[in-house]
Amino acid sequence: MLQHPPAEPGMREEDVETPALLLDLDAFEHNLDLMASLLAPTGAKLRAHAKTHKSAVVAMQQIRRGAIGQCVQKVAEAEVLAWGGVPDILVSNEVVGPRKLARLAALARVAKVAVCVDDAAQVAACAAAAEAAGIRLTVLVEIDVGAARCGVPPGPPAVALAEQIAASKHLIFGGLQAYHGSAQHKRAPEQRAESIAAAAEMCRRTVEQLRQRGLDCPIVGGGGTGTFGHEAASGVYNEIQAGSYAFMDADYARNSNPPPFRQSLFVLATVMSRAIPGVAVLDAGHKAVSVDSGMPLLWQRPGLVYTSASDEHGKLEVRDGTAPALGEKLRLVPGHCDPTVDRYDWYVGVRGGRVECLWPIAARGGMA
Amino acid sequence: MLQHPPAEPGMREEDVETPALLLDLDAFEHNLDLMASLLAPTGAKLRAHAKTHKSAVVAMQQIRRGAIGQCVQKVAEAEVLAWGGVPDILVSNEVVGPRKLARLAALARVAKVAVCVDDAAQVAACAAAAEAAGIRLTVLVEIDVGAARCGVPPGPPAVALAEQIAASKHLIFGGLQAYHGSAQHKRAPEQRAESIAAAAEMCRRTVEQLRQRGLDCPIVGGGGTGTFGHEAASGVYNEIQAGSYAFMDADYARNSNPPPFRQSLFVLATVMSRAIPGVAVLDAGHKAVSVDSGMPLLWQRPGLVYTSASDEHGKLEVRDGTAPALGEKLRLVPGHCDPTVDRYDWYVGVRGGRVECLWPIAARGGMA
Repeated sequence: MLQHPPAEPGMREEDVETPALLLDLDAFEHNLDLMASLLAPTGAKLRAHAKTHKSAVVAMQQIRRGAIGQCVQKVAEAEVLAWGGVPDILVSNEVVGPRKLARLAALARVAKVAVCVDDAAQVAACAAAAEAAGIRLTVLVEIDVGAARCGVPPGPPAVALAEQIAASKHLIFGGLQAYHGSAQHKRAPEQRAESIAAAAEMCRRTVEQLRQRGLDCPIVGGGGTGTFGHEAASGVYNEIQAGSYAFMDADYARNSNPPPFRQSLFVLATVMSRAIPGVAVLDAGHKAVSVDSGMPLLWQRPGLVYTSASDEHGKLEVRDGTAPALGEKLRLVPGHCDPTVDRYDWYVGVRGGRVECLWPIAARGGMA
Repeated sequence: MLQHPPAEPGMREEDVETPALLLDLDAFEHNLDLMASLLAPTGAKLRAHAKTHKSAVVAMQQIRRGAIGQCVQKVAEAEVLAWGGVPDILVSNEVVGPRKLARLAALARVAKVAVCVDDAAQVAACAAAAEAAGIRLTVLVEIDVGAARCGVPPGPPAVALAEQIAASKHLIFGGLQAYHGSAQHKRAPEQRAESIAAAAEMCRRTVEQLRQRGLDCPIVGGGGTGTFGHEAASGVYNEIQAGSYAFMDADYARNSNPPPFRQSLFVLATVMSRAIPGVAVLDAGHKAVSVDSGMPLLWQRPGLVYTSASDEHGKLEVRDGTAPALGEKLRLVPGHCDPTVDRYDWYVGVRGGRVECLWPIAARGGMA
């Protein structure tokens, strides 16, 4: 069931089979180094989010260039990273169900792992899994700082959960998870700044209340590619959980004053039909590129517009008369990088027009 | 890189790890038998579309219950099916590029394969690949019957391509590909009927013109789950290419006078947070269920509405006060079945509340 790699090292980019997920290695490395240099003066550390890249190889590159570890959203991702050598993994999310918690506790023997809770029953479930595995599990309290998805309210409800964690001999209180997801794509910079100022104030208040109860708060984690500068400068967030910064996508580029990273991720597609006048059809539709945040854009082909996707086709409107040839390969900029990556088994790393490497996307897909 | 199966045969459905792709086997088999009985009086044959299911196991069940073979959209799908024992495969699409055509020609030694063209250059490319492989390749002409995506116009342009195919000693003229994709989801039954009446008339005229030039037209293929009754009754289409009928989805169910099949495909998800009042959060977001044709629906839980997806979360609004419990497992009806299947490695076949089988989805993903 492993897919053929669509390329081999040394091959020219135009010979890569399509659809394929290209990673421009110069842009990717630039983004990793830029994030490290932006965070250095703030003192905040990068714990890059692996839900974007789903790959232990990418994770290890991020760690080599300054990240202290990785975030994931699910146990299956934590397993793939730990098995691939990642030493420090936070499941920045709730894990519900005894079998998944048992898998997570087992993983604590090969890597440093931590998980979040937002319910008292979950503290007890984490303690039971840790006890059964004979380990101590680090548990963070997730607080809702504005996204209204997961997390208890900041302040006393968070303190109560933290005290419950600290009272268990099988658990270690790890801190606060305070990600404001919906702030990342607010278009106006001042909206993003205001959202994170409010979130930081909620964190600050909760950290202070924890301290009053004698509880130290090692991690205060949050921040994505759209807002990380605000969290990093807040003086209260100490771990930044950005993921998309490594790749970028069309939706982040639509933010006013967008993040300062280069587009490194592309879907390479082939023109497979030119039979209809004014239309070119690509071999990249819903199963090759995510459209949940809008259609992909054509890279450096301003006269072509990707107007609609079907399962295995993308329809381009030819607007300036310079139609692509049948068989021509074009780069697409995905609308949303995370779910696009998730469709592929391989990154095709390119530099200077040649394939340099192939990296497996081992944690992709709807894994339980 | 093979994902763990999320279940084992014999397990209760509520013990399946999530997210998981469930196939209700009673409903699935009902759908296969119903399609066979609906087509029997028309004389049209079913060549079920594997872009929906991506699995040789599903394909062989369809063939066992009356299908004459399978359609696919790409060479990688054809390979997985042929290697899994499917004897007769039509790539109902154009295949561009010498390496892909070489793979297709190689496959002609283990299965009956055919492919479509809509460009004279592609006829030459198919002939070159067939000659190099030492086989004769069956080639159909795709005509545009209203979808304005791929395909030459019906009538003389189609006849010219057919004559070019028939003139090559390395190729066999296989007939006409005439799928009207955009008609499938027209909401009003009379719109669907009108679209297919027009498409059938285009086919009829082209078949007649081919006959006048001495060319027989073995296959006239088209028809999807939204319109197949019209193609089957037309007297000119002789192969039906429906795929979704086996599974169904929320979007097909929104058609007025929807197709008469049962929902057999579900995403099983777990409630992983209940911290926000009036909200329940599932562990199934963009990477577990496709939203390109709308949000998923809750199965038999009318008080719950799936309002938004993020990468790994689905947010439910609790409208009737009967909130699900933390850890409860819920079935989702995908908005669009094809790209949802494509996210998973395994079907979990269930019957009577128990897991009966696990089938690999070996052709999934953005394969080149």
